[in-house]
Amino acid sequence: MNSGKLYVVGIGPGSEEDMTIRARNTLEKCDYIYGYKVYCDLVKPLFPDKEYITTAMTGEEKRVELALSKAAEGYDVALICSGDSGVYGMAGLAYEFGAKFPDVKIEIIPGVTAALSGAALLGAPLIHDFCLISLSDRLTKMELIEKRLRAAASADMVIVIYNPESKGRKGYLSHACDILMEVLPPDRVCGIARNIGRSEEERSVMTLNELKDAQADMFCTVFIGNSSTKDFSGFMVTPRGYAIENKIFNR
Amino acid sequence: MNSGKLYVVGIGPGSEEDMTIRARNTLEKCDYIYGYKVYCDLVKPLFPDKEYITTAMTGEEKRVELALSKAAEGYDVALICSGDSGVYGMAGLAYEFGAKFPDVKIEIIPGVTAALSGAALLGAPLIHDFCLISLSDRLTKMELIEKRLRAAASADMVIVIYNPESKGRKGYLSHACDILMEVLPPDRVCGIARNIGRSEEERSVMTLNELKDAQADMFCTVFIGNSSTKDFSGFMVTPRGYAIENKIFNR
Repeated sequence: MNSGKLYVVGIGPGSEEDMTIRARNTLEKCDYIYGYKVYCDLVKPLFPDKEYITTAMTGEEKRVELALSKAAEGYDVALICSGDSGVYGMAGLAYEFGAKFPDVKIEIIPGVTAALSGAALLGAPLIHDFCLISLSDRLTKMELIEKRLRAAASADMVIVIYNPESKGRKGYLSHACDILMEVLPPDRVCGIARNIGRSEEERSVMTLNELKDAQADMFCTVFIGNSSTKDFSGFMVTPRGYAIENKIFNR
Repeated sequence: MNSGKLYVVGIGPGSEEDMTIRARNTLEKCDYIYGYKVYCDLVKPLFPDKEYITTAMTGEEKRVELALSKAAEGYDVALICSGDSGVYGMAGLAYEFGAKFPDVKIEIIPGVTAALSGAALLGAPLIHDFCLISLSDRLTKMELIEKRLRAAASADMVIVIYNPESKGRKGYLSHACDILMEVLPPDRVCGIARNIGRSEEERSVMTLNELKDAQADMFCTVFIGNSSTKDFSGFMVTPRGYAIENKIFNR
């Protein structure tokens, strides 16, 4: 029996329009779709005839192994992730566990991660060098997270924070703001993108000091500007280059 | 007369399939498409009936102003960028120059940037915290670029390098590797994604020391692994978390 293929698919922020055409075509041709329940519920209306297998949020390893086993039986299988499949996604686990299923081919289908969709909602906060840092300490020590926040702030990079808070991790964003304010001024321009791609999506632009007291949850992506980021009438905009910035703002 | 709207559209790495559905639908409804010639040539076969206005690679400011003027005349206008429109893209300039055209609404349509499409080609190099650093010193001082490379390496972040070299910037990637080797070991796992999304696309996985002597150009995106990144039979894979990594690699 020939093995099928495992596609690890980033579905973007949630709506069909924000998927790539390749992601949509891939889901169309797969027999089985594996994913966290919330993400499966997002794609089910688009592909009602597929077989869906969901596991809990923390059941990633189980989910990947089940998806690989099904592909080894000869089916084409999609393992879906919100945003991009390679950014805090399942692509890495697929390769790690894939060693046990050498006949299953793996293909990674990228998608629009929250740093990009959130930036589009907020205006143009990235534009130049930036980094992504997750505040979840489920798999990473808090000391390393703090070290990364300090390093990024010291090198004047825009910072995008994933997983700022959750029910079990209250106060993490406020703590991160304290760390950042060791290096950055309290009036640094920041933004929050909430519920990206859903009907309740919302942007708010504020200072770093205000961000410290802001409400955030797992449906928020947080942006910390660099030294040239501006609040442009409620949009968060980082000029493209330091040279261009001076040219435009000084004339 | 009512103003039209300016859409700043990230078209992804190049092929139609790698665009989001929203990007394709937006180009479909626009009357005029502005962009760098190479990117316009990529979308022209898909939308042959549009009016295309191209400017040179360095003509970004002119291009944005022309596109905004056209939208102010009442047309829906797309300004296209390769990859994402907010990552080293035109979204920032659109807001900056947009202040001169207060009646023109601006909407940013995100796309799959080369960090994500290149990662999908290489395997799963990102997965965890990472940063994007451009080696182009056209608009940023080299000292700041070097500072960012050192900061990211010291904080054990995966690094994605954009614009590694060009005809006018020979030897920049090799110089960046020297800077990184002040902090990182020479056997650190690295990768190059070339011509992403085109027929000649190609991945190569190598050590940091080998990367120093590798050929690179503007069609390459370069990935520097973190301390847990592995070469998995020619794929570059960063385990998702330090805890998970140990569980999998030690059992």
